[in-house]
Amino acid sequence: MLLEGVNYPEDLRKLSVDELKVLAAEIRDFIIKTVSKTGGHLASSLGAVELTLALHYVFDTPKDKLVWDVGHQTYAHKIITGRKDKFHTLRQYGGISGFPKVEESIYDTFNVGHAGTSISAALGMALARDLEKSQENIIAIIGDGSLSCGIAYEGLDNAGYIDTDLIVVVNDNNMSISPSLGSISAYLSKKMSGPVYNKLRDEIEKLITTLPLPHEPALKLARKIEESMKFFSPGLLFEELGFKYFGPLDGHKLEDLIKIFNNIKKIKGPIVVHVVTKKGKGYKPAEENPSLFHGIGKFDIESGKPLKSTKNKSCSSIFGDKVVDLMSKNPNVVAITAAMLIGTGLQKAKDIYPDRVFDVGIAEQHATTMAGGLAMKGYKPVVAIYSTFLQRAYDQIIHDIALQKLPVVFAIDRAGIVGDDGETHQGVFDISYLRCVPNMVISAPKDPKELEQLLEFATKYEDGPFAIRYPRGFCEEFDEKFVLDRIEIGRWQRLTDGEDLAILAVGNCVKTALNVSEKLKLKGISSSVFNALFIKPMDEDVLRSLSSYKAVITIEENVAIGGFGEGVAKFLFENGINVSFRQFALPDVFIEHGSQDILRQKYNLGVDYITSQSESLLINKGS
Amino acid sequence: MLLEGVNYPEDLRKLSVDELKVLAAEIRDFIIKTVSKTGGHLASSLGAVELTLALHYVFDTPKDKLVWDVGHQTYAHKIITGRKDKFHTLRQYGGISGFPKVEESIYDTFNVGHAGTSISAALGMALARDLEKSQENIIAIIGDGSLSCGIAYEGLDNAGYIDTDLIVVVNDNNMSISPSLGSISAYLSKKMSGPVYNKLRDEIEKLITTLPLPHEPALKLARKIEESMKFFSPGLLFEELGFKYFGPLDGHKLEDLIKIFNNIKKIKGPIVVHVVTKKGKGYKPAEENPSLFHGIGKFDIESGKPLKSTKNKSCSSIFGDKVVDLMSKNPNVVAITAAMLIGTGLQKAKDIYPDRVFDVGIAEQHATTMAGGLAMKGYKPVVAIYSTFLQRAYDQIIHDIALQKLPVVFAIDRAGIVGDDGETHQGVFDISYLRCVPNMVISAPKDPKELEQLLEFATKYEDGPFAIRYPRGFCEEFDEKFVLDRIEIGRWQRLTDGEDLAILAVGNCVKTALNVSEKLKLKGISSSVFNALFIKPMDEDVLRSLSSYKAVITIEENVAIGGFGEGVAKFLFENGINVSFRQFALPDVFIEHGSQDILRQKYNLGVDYITSQSESLLINKGS
Repeated sequence: MLLEGVNYPEDLRKLSVDELKVLAAEIRDFIIKTVSKTGGHLASSLGAVELTLALHYVFDTPKDKLVWDVGHQTYAHKIITGRKDKFHTLRQYGGISGFPKVEESIYDTFNVGHAGTSISAALGMALARDLEKSQENIIAIIGDGSLSCGIAYEGLDNAGYIDTDLIVVVNDNNMSISPSLGSISAYLSKKMSGPVYNKLRDEIEKLITTLPLPHEPALKLARKIEESMKFFSPGLLFEELGFKYFGPLDGHKLEDLIKIFNNIKKIKGPIVVHVVTKKGKGYKPAEENPSLFHGIGKFDIESGKPLKSTKNKSCSSIFGDKVVDLMSKNPNVVAITAAMLIGTGLQKAKDIYPDRVFDVGIAEQHATTMAGGLAMKGYKPVVAIYSTFLQRAYDQIIHDIALQKLPVVFAIDRAGIVGDDGETHQGVFDISYLRCVPNMVISAPKDPKELEQLLEFATKYEDGPFAIRYPRGFCEEFDEKFVLDRIEIGRWQRLTDGEDLAILAVGNCVKTALNVSEKLKLKGISSSVFNALFIKPMDEDVLRSLSSYKAVITIEENVAIGGFGEGVAKFLFENGINVSFRQFALPDVFIEHGSQDILRQKYNLGVDYITSQSESLLINKGS
Repeated sequence: MLLEGVNYPEDLRKLSVDELKVLAAEIRDFIIKTVSKTGGHLASSLGAVELTLALHYVFDTPKDKLVWDVGHQTYAHKIITGRKDKFHTLRQYGGISGFPKVEESIYDTFNVGHAGTSISAALGMALARDLEKSQENIIAIIGDGSLSCGIAYEGLDNAGYIDTDLIVVVNDNNMSISPSLGSISAYLSKKMSGPVYNKLRDEIEKLITTLPLPHEPALKLARKIEESMKFFSPGLLFEELGFKYFGPLDGHKLEDLIKIFNNIKKIKGPIVVHVVTKKGKGYKPAEENPSLFHGIGKFDIESGKPLKSTKNKSCSSIFGDKVVDLMSKNPNVVAITAAMLIGTGLQKAKDIYPDRVFDVGIAEQHATTMAGGLAMKGYKPVVAIYSTFLQRAYDQIIHDIALQKLPVVFAIDRAGIVGDDGETHQGVFDISYLRCVPNMVISAPKDPKELEQLLEFATKYEDGPFAIRYPRGFCEEFDEKFVLDRIEIGRWQRLTDGEDLAILAVGNCVKTALNVSEKLKLKGISSSVFNALFIKPMDEDVLRSLSSYKAVITIEENVAIGGFGEGVAKFLFENGINVSFRQFALPDVFIEHGSQDILRQKYNLGVDYITSQSESLLINKGS
């Protein structure tokens, strides 16, 4: 095993190119075996093995800086930069992250998880290098899917203008998570098919044939011109933005990659190297179904089948099924997502209503404002975006949707603790950043049935934007008796009746609240559990009635600051409702990776902790 | 006066092209005269007069939809769509808005104020049109400055891919607010200067000269090829994204504009029409200094000089001067802005330290992440962006800066009520959307001296991002005795000493608090005023000490929800500090346009209102 002797890039640099090829195969095996046990982003990382080796082979890392975009393609990078022995802890609580992390390694230059940031970060580093008059190479590695992000374009646009030394490697696998959408991606894969080229070629050919030239040389000339134009074709767009373009290259041919990286090291100014790779490369099930193997749980290597017990339906699939149902009933319902057709559950609706479901690529800003255009014309857009990615569309939510009271439904998937993907992906800010936006309704269902009810209600709501947040993973089922008769804006649901304590809980925390209530009952404490399915507006009738309790607690999977509980506290305090109070919510820190269960316990959203704290709250009140 | 007879586009369509030219001149006069009295966005609107007339002349508005980007160029549009008689109320409280507003007119199709949204909104409308199988034209009109926005690119990328009928008029005046930056803008103005063209041309010429052709025809051919390539040049980038390109056209030649708009009406698919205009056209002082006349107050038409009494220095100019001072002392301080060099006060620093001040164009996302790259390499970036525009960079603040605890200083200008620009521009959410972000320090100076102190402190702070929010306009001076000795993170300043009421005030509201305190004193109520210069972290020692007062109030120029006062309420309530409480802040609505003074009174941030409410609060407490 060559891999046994390779711990850092310096070990790599002692190998021949032929040995590197062997090493690439070993690394692939190692990744497949590990990820089959840990789960993770398999397909992207398999596609980037040779690219990773070539970059570390040619460039003088860590002095030269590799800035990975998104970062889920960096498993090979992690393995050859000192983390081979920890690789089995991938994405586990306390283990190494699934994304680059500056805290983990000097070879990780910038933390990442969301798409499109690498060019901007790398340009900042390049400017710093210029100011300090040092010489290192700065290399951003970005997928074609990420090139649909506005920030990636802002970075290209500015880098081309500033014109300093910067290498952008475009890793083109014609996929973001689903197959890539958008012109730029189509553009990369086409050769000489654009209307301009066709027109230009026609024109030149016409010129040549009308000029008094001998027949043979004229044809030869025409062919040569066409060839030289072809040569330039895929890079024109980058060249127009001020970059020198090289490619396309086969991203699995180590010799070619090493040769071109060695050559461009000497070239000044902004450079694009266009590398074509295959997502899932080297593992057949992943090559054949790269979307399934984009982010996958444990799987059987032999069969390529996921190993998971599907106990309940996920919130996403309940959402997706309900969208299909609503589309069948109401021709005005349309759906929009940003490169998350499968993840959000919208694939089924896309299959049945292809003209009414729009996947815009990784472009949350555009997705939101485009929904505004549709809503302005009377359509009911359901915009399905994960909580963490919706942060990208914050200004559009305020400026294009809420300000005009446009009835856009925001289906906020992966709200709360998401688990393994860690700090860049936790959906723990949306309650805070949406509550302050005027005209915004924010809701959270406690169970699958309520998700359906809220979604149906939302698509009939005409007075402005309506957000529904729901967690990653399975949707807790509730007892039949807890089904809501009807949804009413700002109206909460009382689930149990007690006198000592009122528990106001949001979304998946309602289950926790019921469990807390049960435990407290055993200790002789009676409590009322309220399902606060509307985070905004709040149920002020319920809030005013809380003076009859000794204590009030709130439970939510969002940061405490600006969260639901803070709003409740403000209302009660300002209205002189004199009860003991405690907000259970996430602390003012970024939440690391680990299983959802572990993190909920660690961050004090578990039943036992809340029960004991509530008990103390009542005892202190009594004293 | 032709203008007398023109109230709606239908009146326009009865005129000849020669009459339109006369009308254009009359409209220019009318705009100049009005804006000289009201203030407003003069230069952009003067540049778009012929374009506006031609669009309404050719297209069947309001059935056909004009979607204006940014919207500050729409004065001519407002004048010929039923608002001529109200035009003198422009930007005044109760008058017409300086931006398109759906509520004002059926000809305004989408509210706007921030840049880059038009293509996405128009594409949404086009998709709606396709779904309802109607036929109208949808036209987005976007400036070259707005094309540096990520969302504009996301819109282009998706529109080119979707390939439905959509017209994008690029109004190219080589300016955003300051002269445009970024490759796309440079690109639009260049012809055949790119490396690809040069290389391609060289290659073709070499081919021609090496082939056995007669000398004369070969040269003629080379020239013709060059010409035909030139013809295609400025549109290639758009063509590559899937658009058909027409232009460039002289945007002040009505005949040409009308002819081309008539022609393209019949063409299918996404189209770009590239129109070149002159910002400030027809008013010499504005043509010569378009940046000054971008957004201007009252001015003297004859001399082109602004009519304003400069009583105090603006916060922006204090900020700008201090940046120069800090740059002179610390070579690691750099500054970044997004097309706001003049507005933020950074122009002076740019003039003195051109290599250390970066204006990235309208690209707040990129500005923020690029700052992250600089900070990662040990530099101290000061990112100066208006509060309302910083919303665009929300995800980057969380994901690229706060998560890595990068010491980036955010200088948040125009925080609070901004006045005349109205609801799209009010900076009233930043406290709420930043408070919930871990690792973020948020501060607000009460006066010019403190702005300087906080900025100096922030550039020495190493533990993470540091935001300083300050208002639009003049910075209130304070008595010498209120100068802080030293800044300490999370430490508030007590300004007056009382027993009945504690007033916690943020930024420019500290002045209000002192005035309230004075008035209450006359009524026999003593109060302690605290300058809460740190919104996060809060001064918990002060908060814990508040139990000695009968009542506590907070004052801030931010929405109440998620604001400073809400955080204070939560702390006091959860800690059982039993006092009466009231948060004075902005309500949960979008704040319209009008003078800052009028709006502060209307939204209950005036001294008299707060005084009387505080009195009641104490009386109720006493009862």
